[in-house]
Amino acid sequence: MIIVLNNATKQEDVDSFVEKLHSDGLQTHISAGEHTTIIGLVGDTSRLDIGTIQALPFVEDVKRISEPYKAANRKFHPMDTIVDISGKTKIGEGTFSVIAGPCSVETEEQMTEVARDVKASGATLLRGGAFKPRTSPYSFQGLEGRGLELLLLAKKEVGLPVVTEIMDINTLDMFADVDVIQVGARNMQNFNLLKELGKCDKPILLKRGLANTIQEWLMSAEYIMAGGNNNVILCERGIRTFETKTRNTLDISAVPMLKKLTHLPVIVDPSHATGLSWMVPTLAKTAVPAGADGIMVEVHNDPAKAWCDGDQSLDPKQFDDLMKDLKKRVEFEGKKIV
Amino acid sequence: MIIVLNNATKQEDVDSFVEKLHSDGLQTHISAGEHTTIIGLVGDTSRLDIGTIQALPFVEDVKRISEPYKAANRKFHPMDTIVDISGKTKIGEGTFSVIAGPCSVETEEQMTEVARDVKASGATLLRGGAFKPRTSPYSFQGLEGRGLELLLLAKKEVGLPVVTEIMDINTLDMFADVDVIQVGARNMQNFNLLKELGKCDKPILLKRGLANTIQEWLMSAEYIMAGGNNNVILCERGIRTFETKTRNTLDISAVPMLKKLTHLPVIVDPSHATGLSWMVPTLAKTAVPAGADGIMVEVHNDPAKAWCDGDQSLDPKQFDDLMKDLKKRVEFEGKKIV
Amino acid sequence: MIIVLNNATKQEDVDSFVEKLHSDGLQTHISAGEHTTIIGLVGDTSRLDIGTIQALPFVEDVKRISEPYKAANRKFHPMDTIVDISGKTKIGEGTFSVIAGPCSVETEEQMTEVARDVKASGATLLRGGAFKPRTSPYSFQGLEGRGLELLLLAKKEVGLPVVTEIMDINTLDMFADVDVIQVGARNMQNFNLLKELGKCDKPILLKRGLANTIQEWLMSAEYIMAGGNNNVILCERGIRTFETKTRNTLDISAVPMLKKLTHLPVIVDPSHATGLSWMVPTLAKTAVPAGADGIMVEVHNDPAKAWCDGDQSLDPKQFDDLMKDLKKRVEFEGKKIV
Amino acid sequence: MIIVLNNATKQEDVDSFVEKLHSDGLQTHISAGEHTTIIGLVGDTSRLDIGTIQALPFVEDVKRISEPYKAANRKFHPMDTIVDISGKTKIGEGTFSVIAGPCSVETEEQMTEVARDVKASGATLLRGGAFKPRTSPYSFQGLEGRGLELLLLAKKEVGLPVVTEIMDINTLDMFADVDVIQVGARNMQNFNLLKELGKCDKPILLKRGLANTIQEWLMSAEYIMAGGNNNVILCERGIRTFETKTRNTLDISAVPMLKKLTHLPVIVDPSHATGLSWMVPTLAKTAVPAGADGIMVEVHNDPAKAWCDGDQSLDPKQFDDLMKDLKKRVEFEGKKIV
Repeated sequence: MIIVLNNATKQEDVDSFVEKLHSDGLQTHISAGEHTTIIGLVGDTSRLDIGTIQALPFVEDVKRISEPYKAANRKFHPMDTIVDISGKTKIGEGTFSVIAGPCSVETEEQMTEVARDVKASGATLLRGGAFKPRTSPYSFQGLEGRGLELLLLAKKEVGLPVVTEIMDINTLDMFADVDVIQVGARNMQNFNLLKELGKCDKPILLKRGLANTIQEWLMSAEYIMAGGNNNVILCERGIRTFETKTRNTLDISAVPMLKKLTHLPVIVDPSHATGLSWMVPTLAKTAVPAGADGIMVEVHNDPAKAWCDGDQSLDPKQFDDLMKDLKKRVEFEGKKIV
Repeated sequence: MIIVLNNATKQEDVDSFVEKLHSDGLQTHISAGEHTTIIGLVGDTSRLDIGTIQALPFVEDVKRISEPYKAANRKFHPMDTIVDISGKTKIGEGTFSVIAGPCSVETEEQMTEVARDVKASGATLLRGGAFKPRTSPYSFQGLEGRGLELLLLAKKEVGLPVVTEIMDINTLDMFADVDVIQVGARNMQNFNLLKELGKCDKPILLKRGLANTIQEWLMSAEYIMAGGNNNVILCERGIRTFETKTRNTLDISAVPMLKKLTHLPVIVDPSHATGLSWMVPTLAKTAVPAGADGIMVEVHNDPAKAWCDGDQSLDPKQFDDLMKDLKKRVEFEGKKIV
Repeated sequence: MIIVLNNATKQEDVDSFVEKLHSDGLQTHISAGEHTTIIGLVGDTSRLDIGTIQALPFVEDVKRISEPYKAANRKFHPMDTIVDISGKTKIGEGTFSVIAGPCSVETEEQMTEVARDVKASGATLLRGGAFKPRTSPYSFQGLEGRGLELLLLAKKEVGLPVVTEIMDINTLDMFADVDVIQVGARNMQNFNLLKELGKCDKPILLKRGLANTIQEWLMSAEYIMAGGNNNVILCERGIRTFETKTRNTLDISAVPMLKKLTHLPVIVDPSHATGLSWMVPTLAKTAVPAGADGIMVEVHNDPAKAWCDGDQSLDPKQFDDLMKDLKKRVEFEGKKIV
Repeated sequence: MIIVLNNATKQEDVDSFVEKLHSDGLQTHISAGEHTTIIGLVGDTSRLDIGTIQALPFVEDVKRISEPYKAANRKFHPMDTIVDISGKTKIGEGTFSVIAGPCSVETEEQMTEVARDVKASGATLLRGGAFKPRTSPYSFQGLEGRGLELLLLAKKEVGLPVVTEIMDINTLDMFADVDVIQVGARNMQNFNLLKELGKCDKPILLKRGLANTIQEWLMSAEYIMAGGNNNVILCERGIRTFETKTRNTLDISAVPMLKKLTHLPVIVDPSHATGLSWMVPTLAKTAVPAGADGIMVEVHNDPAKAWCDGDQSLDPKQFDDLMKDLKKRVEFEGKKIV
């Protein structure tokens, strides 16, 4: 950490501040310039509160040099994390995972039909929303408990592990047979939820918040990992920008950046990133050379009758075409969809 | 609502679509142009899913004309909502409320001392954080239950109604003696929390999310109001932009915009908006002519020793100076701080 | 175009407004609802000033349905535009173009050496900056006229057509032997420059502005095309967002979106998009499945000694490795780098 | 400046790098930690290219501590700059200036009528656009030379100094009798234009770019000042964010931030900031306590017939009401409108 003092600071203030830092177990290196004095801090600064240091009247600026995340940091854990999904598949071991299914579970027929379709096309995990975060209280909020039951029925039917979103920690018991618990974009900084999920041992798929930085995202992963659960999968799903032609802006560069900063697997959600079904296959294809460990795609048996987000769902035929194409692309990279 | 069809749409598709809309109780008006056909919808469109309509192969665009919020909409409720705070003060009745106190409750001495100070300077409500949403799991997370106790002790001591943040609906019982429950920026779209708070009758101070639009914010208010709780106070606290000199960018124009769109009271939080204590008084002053119903300001008895966010806290002397100045400004507008 | 009137509008105001629209050669279709009246306009609305209509006291909202660009619009020009580059290569004819070279021209040796290297690796056009837009007046501003000479010397030496940026229309004469004139991000809305370039017949590479929407970008292309020059190539180079880990955020979804909206060729600049040389190859690879017609990459013979932007330049070996890899990817798509 | 080296750097690389820095006249202070080594640089680093240093293989990060602007920096020039406007008024001397007039000059009658009206209401400068930067080539582009003539006629008639925008340096001769030359938001980084304006001695009103940081804005002021022209007035006019209810988001905190960082006068343009005439008076009022040296407001004699931007123009009666109100507010601050 670097602390910049203004040049009018009295020597006694500098001295007592430095003494305080030493008593916190930190080493200091001082560079005195004409207009500013720089204190370089060496040691574990992750517990120092930047705001409080900045409140000191003689401090001009504080800059953190080391990343504030530890468990998620590739520097301290150079090996890739491989997340085992109920012994049925793995995410992050050099393969390309495909999570597919409807935005929301609607009926037994719909869920099972889509499950069979995506399984037949080669998806490796099944998704389906039971608890739906909706901007409007008047929109369909998901089938909730009944939705989970239908999703688990489909799981039984086709044998794929399932991913579904949790919105309230009080419903955790209902997720016993769910294979991967998703934390949605709007809950990325619901710290109480993250803490509780850190205590369970299920894989957690953590979506990036609408307008959260990569660093904040890794800090949210750190919340889960600090509780003891290292099975975190990061999911880039587009960020909020000034552009309005697409619902969000897919931050494709987040994939290689995360691969550098962390050892956790990274997947891409092209459906939410664009909100436009015709663009989903193209964005899915870019995820492959970007280095993603997989994608999550919305598939609905009849998008124009979907109870929500039909505009971003592929139909089973479109998904099957995409899978055939992706298979070749993934092989081009020397990987497999399994 | 306006639905734009592309010019290649078959007449039979248009006809059956229009029939479907009529069966939903909506009236349609059709304008056929050279390149597009426009369907104007009249009636209650708040339950229509835009995404699903957009998924129709012949639909080019869908635009909502009427606002999707009803309870929060000034059009349907032209009179200002006045929120009564435990019979001790009111927010939104043409007065200017000042909520002041420390970012986080630290000790009994600190909390009580700050409470006495802000009361003496004329604050109308006391704030203090017990449950603290922090980006890092390694940062101080608040004194939690003990923090609430200390805040309520201070309330007893000075007699000001208190505002404090809830992070988990399971702790609601602990808020029995709290006068205003705050929903933080990161929970603005924690819809389960909003739904539950809609069932209680306490005033809710709803902060704007980091990167949420005014419309999304009003939809979150609508979640609370749809549950029966109309005592919602909106708090603008800065939005996330590309500018890095300030922590956030205070969207001062949100105040007059909200005053036009909704009947709910609006307050401004200059402390979080800027993150810089020296700028807090200036921004607080701009809230007055902007038409805000009050402000929420962080005050700490010793900012440089604060356990968090010391850089944005005023000390009691600075707060007292601000209050003396604000009093005159508020009187200039023909209002009072009470 | 859709015009929304508030429900308190007097019939006589509606009538005289509608009459005025008719006199402008437009047809109107009126939908009268409970709270609002909607006027659908059919005809050429591209000359109507939205702001002035919005100023009418009874107008609540105005929404444009048809795109305001004509010459650049794929609807009216379904065939792809192919830009011929001095008879030596073409951009947009189903091939993949690679523009490579240093950020800035520094010396004859540097420019010629890089030119030979990128030619040998298979680049199809050579770039090099002579006039450099720099944030600081104290930074190196480019060799200007002398830089153009050195770039043209390198062109002569290796035989590749050259791309270089213009900053001032008064220097246009100096670009006589330049094959493609680049308009930089900061000049994307320098409308006088665009108008003048519309009068020449050279291909124009138009970079997207830092924070410009796709629609504004197409309107800037329209400025050039309205002058008679249809040889416009669009270059996505990253947009400004809240994320700070990368210099900009590559908007990869802009590529398929532009392919839908316009017939103009689209290339991607991964160097400026990220500002990090190690990430450039990964982003270059994503441009291929995104559907781009090529890329523009910075290559320097000794990045750590570059006079500017060394951090985003590849060295010749890294570029050669990238080209070998890209060749296979482009072939995978059934295209060629020529 | 702080340079962070990764911990794998060889001592010989560190040594030769440090030697190079010393040869550039800089002093270095080294802090060696467990994971990183920090070099603190003291001396004039404004000419160092951050990108090139970052390209060094052993450099992890480079952070600038001192601001890269000198002439505009309050640290080196603590006294406020007062810009004299043709001996008729001054901007920045503790008064509050009001620049008013139509978005664009349309006819002699319109321009003169508005000029008389705003003069009568107490405006201190007159504005009127002759060269208009418009997003669409099909929109009205301003009366250009004829517009300047009409503006100067109005100046003669009412005696107020005039402000008008330049778009092309080749038209500079036509601005001989113009008192303040405006650089529009889209030209804030048109560096050639800034350099040329640095050579003239007229006051320059420099608008903030759509998505430019405060630091970039000050660097653009520095371009003008580096040429010898210190008469720069900064104008905040709203920035581009994700919010769509207002055309832009007024960054009111930019005013106090600029007052801290620079000695140049700062004015606020509430008309462009919001794009909504009904909100203009409210935002104008917030500029006063924010500490602005004035405002620039669009006034049109008949907004609903304006040739552009009618939706953000006040009519003369609305402007007069605003001026009466502002006069009292300015006096409240101990200032005057002169």
